[in-house]
Amino acid sequence: MPRYRFTVEYDGAPYSGWQRQKSGVPSVQQALETALLACSQEEVTVHASGRTDAGVHARGQVVHVTMSKAWNPYRLMQAVNFHLKPQPVAVLDAVPVADDWHARFSCIGRWYLYRILCRTAPPALERGRVWSVAYALDADAMQLGANRLLGTQDFTSFRASLCQADSPVRTLDRLEVARVGDEIHITAAARSFLHHQVRNMVGTLALVGQKKWTADDVTAALEAKDRSAAGPTAPAEGLYFMGAVYPEE
Amino acid sequence: MPRYRFTVEYDGAPYSGWQRQKSGVPSVQQALETALLACSQEEVTVHASGRTDAGVHARGQVVHVTMSKAWNPYRLMQAVNFHLKPQPVAVLDAVPVADDWHARFSCIGRWYLYRILCRTAPPALERGRVWSVAYALDADAMQLGANRLLGTQDFTSFRASLCQADSPVRTLDRLEVARVGDEIHITAAARSFLHHQVRNMVGTLALVGQKKWTADDVTAALEAKDRSAAGPTAPAEGLYFMGAVYPEE
Repeated sequence: MPRYRFTVEYDGAPYSGWQRQKSGVPSVQQALETALLACSQEEVTVHASGRTDAGVHARGQVVHVTMSKAWNPYRLMQAVNFHLKPQPVAVLDAVPVADDWHARFSCIGRWYLYRILCRTAPPALERGRVWSVAYALDADAMQLGANRLLGTQDFTSFRASLCQADSPVRTLDRLEVARVGDEIHITAAARSFLHHQVRNMVGTLALVGQKKWTADDVTAALEAKDRSAAGPTAPAEGLYFMGAVYPEE
Repeated sequence: MPRYRFTVEYDGAPYSGWQRQKSGVPSVQQALETALLACSQEEVTVHASGRTDAGVHARGQVVHVTMSKAWNPYRLMQAVNFHLKPQPVAVLDAVPVADDWHARFSCIGRWYLYRILCRTAPPALERGRVWSVAYALDADAMQLGANRLLGTQDFTSFRASLCQADSPVRTLDRLEVARVGDEIHITAAARSFLHHQVRNMVGTLALVGQKKWTADDVTAALEAKDRSAAGPTAPAEGLYFMGAVYPEE
């Protein structure tokens, strides 16, 4: 049956996360499935490259859906966007993919952006879009700390207690810290991440940026293999799922 | 009496504009004056470098206020921000200024940013922050059109019918068009602008970007000295007051 891949942008604020919940609380998956039902009269399941938590945004979530009939991809995108209104979810593009292409299982890389706004004043324009901290952060020190987390490691210390992954070992390909005006941007890329891994790494690097921790403390936290040894979980509102990578690209 | 200069950021969406209205509809000026009353028990008037229309945002509005007693500027900023909550208005900095310093009358330059999002899908994360158009725009063609508006000109064709300025002549110092991802950013700088001037210039340049107009058409519209000869007024939600310039800087 015809299968389509969508790139999806959303504001995570009104949603309990990507995944449809039994309780019927709003989720991004439900918003998309409801819009697809409205335009096709089909009850379909939308599969995502990665589930995002409550409040986490996406600029490049990748999903797929299997339809019973073939659609012009552009018209399908337009129809879904029409029925998504007024929700803050938008399909940015739609392309046909092979029957065995899977947004989650075919995915070989994911990347995230985390935004921290460092200033005394609260955000007015970026409210809900950044983690707002009233203190300065040293981006160079944070980068030195970030470097300690690169490569193939046991990320037990940076994994949510509820994480369901079989193994705590992941390979972190990129963890880059940049100053952009009065914001710190942290970019993280890996084949896959553990639950809360990015937010736990960011919460830890924020300690380094404040000079409360050194890069050696980051290494010690990693080696402890104990969640309580690392820093706090940074808030969801600063996190953006930016993109997913597939072998054909 | 002690006078303070604030830099102010706001989301224009919930406001009828900068200026306090007799009818009591929400305005940014009223929000600031109410917060200042709450922290000082003083009824003060806040003066802005430039009034913004309903829905127009600011990243760098400059205002001043005269208080009856001296404040530590940092504590005044903190107090105002506390009382502004939960409104999307924030004071970014506060500095003492001379008794005769005036946010509006001392100002010798203002600059604005206008953001146009060019893509089929509606904005999810940037909703209310950009003018969303479903067509492509040619930034290079727009820049050629923009160049025709530079310098000292009679901007009657780009002036709102309700504009109260004595003269339609203004000197446009910068009008720069840049592509930033899937957005077009237009930066405009002048000593001062006529009412709706930036939005009317943007609406006209969008015609050039779509190849409906040429740069010569922009010159013809300018020379017509007739509002109906230029393009439509671009929506308020894409416009940001970015900053004001003063002689001491």
